[in-house]
Amino acid sequence: MKNIYENLGKEELSKKVSELRKQYEEYQALGLRLDISRGKPSPEQLELSMPMLDTLHSNVDYLSEDGFDTRNYGALTGIPEAKRLMADVMETRPENVIIFCDSSLNIMYDLITKSWTHGVMGSTPWYQLPEVKFLCPVPGYDRHFAITEYFGIKMINIPMLPDGPDMDLVEKYVSEDPSVKGIWCVPKYSNPTGTVYSEETCFRFARLKPAAEDFRIYWDNAYNVHHLDISRPRVIPELIEECRLVGNPDMVYKFGSFSKISFPGSSIAALAASPANVADVVSQMKIQTIGHNKINQLRHVRFFVDRIGVMNHMRRHAAIVRPKFEALQEVLSEQLSGTGLADWTNPEGGYFVSFNTLPGCAKKVVKMMKEAGVVLTGAGATFPYGKDPEDKNIRLAPTFASLPEIRKALQVFGCVVKLVSAEKVLSEMN
Amino acid sequence: MKNIYENLGKEELSKKVSELRKQYEEYQALGLRLDISRGKPSPEQLELSMPMLDTLHSNVDYLSEDGFDTRNYGALTGIPEAKRLMADVMETRPENVIIFCDSSLNIMYDLITKSWTHGVMGSTPWYQLPEVKFLCPVPGYDRHFAITEYFGIKMINIPMLPDGPDMDLVEKYVSEDPSVKGIWCVPKYSNPTGTVYSEETCFRFARLKPAAEDFRIYWDNAYNVHHLDISRPRVIPELIEECRLVGNPDMVYKFGSFSKISFPGSSIAALAASPANVADVVSQMKIQTIGHNKINQLRHVRFFVDRIGVMNHMRRHAAIVRPKFEALQEVLSEQLSGTGLADWTNPEGGYFVSFNTLPGCAKKVVKMMKEAGVVLTGAGATFPYGKDPEDKNIRLAPTFASLPEIRKALQVFGCVVKLVSAEKVLSEMN
Repeated sequence: MKNIYENLGKEELSKKVSELRKQYEEYQALGLRLDISRGKPSPEQLELSMPMLDTLHSNVDYLSEDGFDTRNYGALTGIPEAKRLMADVMETRPENVIIFCDSSLNIMYDLITKSWTHGVMGSTPWYQLPEVKFLCPVPGYDRHFAITEYFGIKMINIPMLPDGPDMDLVEKYVSEDPSVKGIWCVPKYSNPTGTVYSEETCFRFARLKPAAEDFRIYWDNAYNVHHLDISRPRVIPELIEECRLVGNPDMVYKFGSFSKISFPGSSIAALAASPANVADVVSQMKIQTIGHNKINQLRHVRFFVDRIGVMNHMRRHAAIVRPKFEALQEVLSEQLSGTGLADWTNPEGGYFVSFNTLPGCAKKVVKMMKEAGVVLTGAGATFPYGKDPEDKNIRLAPTFASLPEIRKALQVFGCVVKLVSAEKVLSEMN
Repeated sequence: MKNIYENLGKEELSKKVSELRKQYEEYQALGLRLDISRGKPSPEQLELSMPMLDTLHSNVDYLSEDGFDTRNYGALTGIPEAKRLMADVMETRPENVIIFCDSSLNIMYDLITKSWTHGVMGSTPWYQLPEVKFLCPVPGYDRHFAITEYFGIKMINIPMLPDGPDMDLVEKYVSEDPSVKGIWCVPKYSNPTGTVYSEETCFRFARLKPAAEDFRIYWDNAYNVHHLDISRPRVIPELIEECRLVGNPDMVYKFGSFSKISFPGSSIAALAASPANVADVVSQMKIQTIGHNKINQLRHVRFFVDRIGVMNHMRRHAAIVRPKFEALQEVLSEQLSGTGLADWTNPEGGYFVSFNTLPGCAKKVVKMMKEAGVVLTGAGATFPYGKDPEDKNIRLAPTFASLPEIRKALQVFGCVVKLVSAEKVLSEMN
C-alpha cells in the first residue's frame, strides 16, 4: 500500500514539506517542555497509595503473623504474609516466592549475575563458557537488554508477533543451541507493544525442550494486574504451574513487583520459581544479605491485604491511566490514520504504546521532537544494543504527563512524523 | 603463667571436674533458652526509632529538597538530604556518598561481585586472574569472610593487635603481592574484638603502596557512632580524606549503615568513596536498578536531620546497651578473673566481646553451652573458612538478651569454660 506522500507529485510534495516545516516551527516557538519517555506513574496515581503510609505508625505492632519482629534482622526470604500477598497477586504459591526490596529489576540483575559467577543449580558458571546467548523478543524493554549486554551475553532478536514472540524461532534456538541460556519475556501488556501472549504461546513456552539444562525463561510479569479496563482483564496461563505439569518444573523465573502498584522503587518485589530454584537462589542470597526491608513488606500487607485489595486499587489506577491512553489513540488517529505513514499498538494494559514510522525515520523523529521540547524514549532503545535494524520503532509512554500535555505532545508528534516522512519520500524522488 | 588447674594435683583436679560437671548438670536442668549469638539490637532499642515512622504519613509532602517526588522512580544515588545526613554521620562529603537500601552488607557483596565480573575502574576483572587474595584481620566478621569465600578469593589471616591489624604484615602483603586486592576492616569497635584502630594504624593504611592498582581497603565503619560511653567517643582519622591527602585518593571503600541506628535491614546504608570510585560504581548501579527506596531515605532525614540528631539518638541506645556490657564484664570477672583460663576484651563500643579460651577448647565450650540451652556464635566463625587455628576464640553478643538473661548466660558460660579447661588439663596429665 502506498502512503499519502507517494501519491503526490514532486512539486506538490515540496509544498507539503514546507507547510509541515512551518507548522513544526510554530510548535518549536511554543517553548514546550514535555516528557513521554518513561513508564512512570503520575502524581495522581501515587496519591492512591498514600493511605498505605498511615498503616504503620508508632502505635501499632510490628509483628508478622508468626510472631517475628519485622523491625529486626532476619526473615531472609520475606515474612509469611508478604509471601502470601505476593503469591496471590502473582498467581502462584507462597513457598515459591522470595520477597526482595525496591524493584524486580534488581532481582533479574542478581540472577543473571549469579548465573554468570556461580551457575544455575550446579551447572557451569557462564563466565567459563565460550559464549552465552539470550533471546530477545523485539521490540522489548531496554533495561532487560542492558543487563545482558553488561555481561557480554549475545542477544538475538526474536520478532514479536500479535500473540507473542515467534515461537517457531524460539523453539528452534532453544532446542538446538546449548549456549542459549535464557529469554526475556514480558508476557502480558508487553513493554512496549502491549502484546498479551496467547494461551498457545504460553503452552509452547512451558513445553520447550532446551538444549541447555540451565536455560531459564525470564518471565517478567510486570503488568500482570495493570489492566486499562479492569472489568475485562486479560488472563494468561500461570507458567510455573504449567512448566511443572509438563515436566519442566525448573525452567521459569517469574518476576512481580509493586512498583507500579504502590511507589516505584519504594515497594516490594518478588521472584517466584520452583522450590529447587528458590533453594538455589537462597544459597546466594544468604551470602549477600541478612534480609530485606520487612517493615515495608508489613506495610504493603496491612494496606493491600490480598489480591482483592490490589484489584480494587488497580481499578483506581486504571481510571487515571485509561483516559491518557484514549487521548493518545485519539490524537494519533486524527493525525495519522489512513496515511500509510505509521502503525501503532492499542494495548489493553501496561504502560506503553509501540509506534512504527516508515523505515529509517525513527531517529530523526525523536531528534526533532526533542528540538521541539518533547522528550521521547531514544530511538533504538527497544532493541538490543540500541540498534533498531529498520530505524522505525518508537516507544510512547503516556502515564506520567497530564491529559492536555499528552494531547499537545501527540499533536507535535503527528506533525513531526508527517514532516520526516514527507522529506524522506521527497528525497527518494530525487 | 600457669592456670589455676595446672597447680592442682591429679586427684584434686578430678574432684574439681566432678564439682563443675555437677554444677553444669544443674544448669542443664533449668531448661534455659538463651541466645547471645548475633549482634541484634534489643526490642527496647528498636522502640527508640518508632517516632521515625510517624514522620511520614498521608498528610505530609514527599518532596526532596530539590523538588523531586521521592515516591516515584529516579534519584539513583539517593536524594540530596539523605546523602548529606549520611556524609555527616560518616564524616565525609555528600558528593562521595551513594545511598543504598537495607544494609551495607549488600553493598560490599555488590562491590566484590562487580570487581569479579567487570573489574575496578577499568582494571582486569578478577575472574580472569589466576588468583585473588584478601587480607582478613582475625578474629573478624563471619559475613565478610563468607562473601570472599563465595567468590573463591583466598583469605589470609592477619593477627589483630591492640591498635589494629598487624600493619607490618599488611604492608608486606599489599606492597609485594599484586594478587592481594583487598582487606576487610572494621576500624572502630571492631567485630568481635572491639579494637579501635590507632591513628598510626589509620595513617599506615592511607600510606600503603599496593602492588595492585585495584587494591581497595574495605573500611566497614559499622560501629562509627555506637559508643558505649557517648561522652567519651573514640574518634579515628577519616580515611577517604587521609588517602586523598597522601596521594592514594581511590584506595578506600568506606561503608556506613543505619541498621543499628534505626531498624536492622529496614534502614538506609551507604558507600562513601572518591569521586572516581563513585563514578565507577554508578556505571554498574545504573544497570542494576532504577533507584533505591527514597521514601525511606526521606523518613530517616525527617527524623534524624543530621549528625546531632543521630548522636542524641545513639546516647539513648548506649543507655540500654552499656549495662548489658557491664553485666557481661562483671560476671566474666567473677567467674574467670585471675584463673589464667581465658582472656577477653572490654570494648568501648560496638556489639561484641571477643573471648579466648585455652587453646583447643572453644568448639567444646560452644557445644556444651548449646546443650545447656545457651546459643553462642559458632566457634571458628570469627576466622576465614570457619577455621580458628587455635580453636580458642568465641564471640559474645550481649545486646539482644535482657540483663537477667545475660547474667544467667554468662554464669553458665563461666562454669562451662572452667569445666572444659579442667578436663583438658586433666587429660594432659594422663
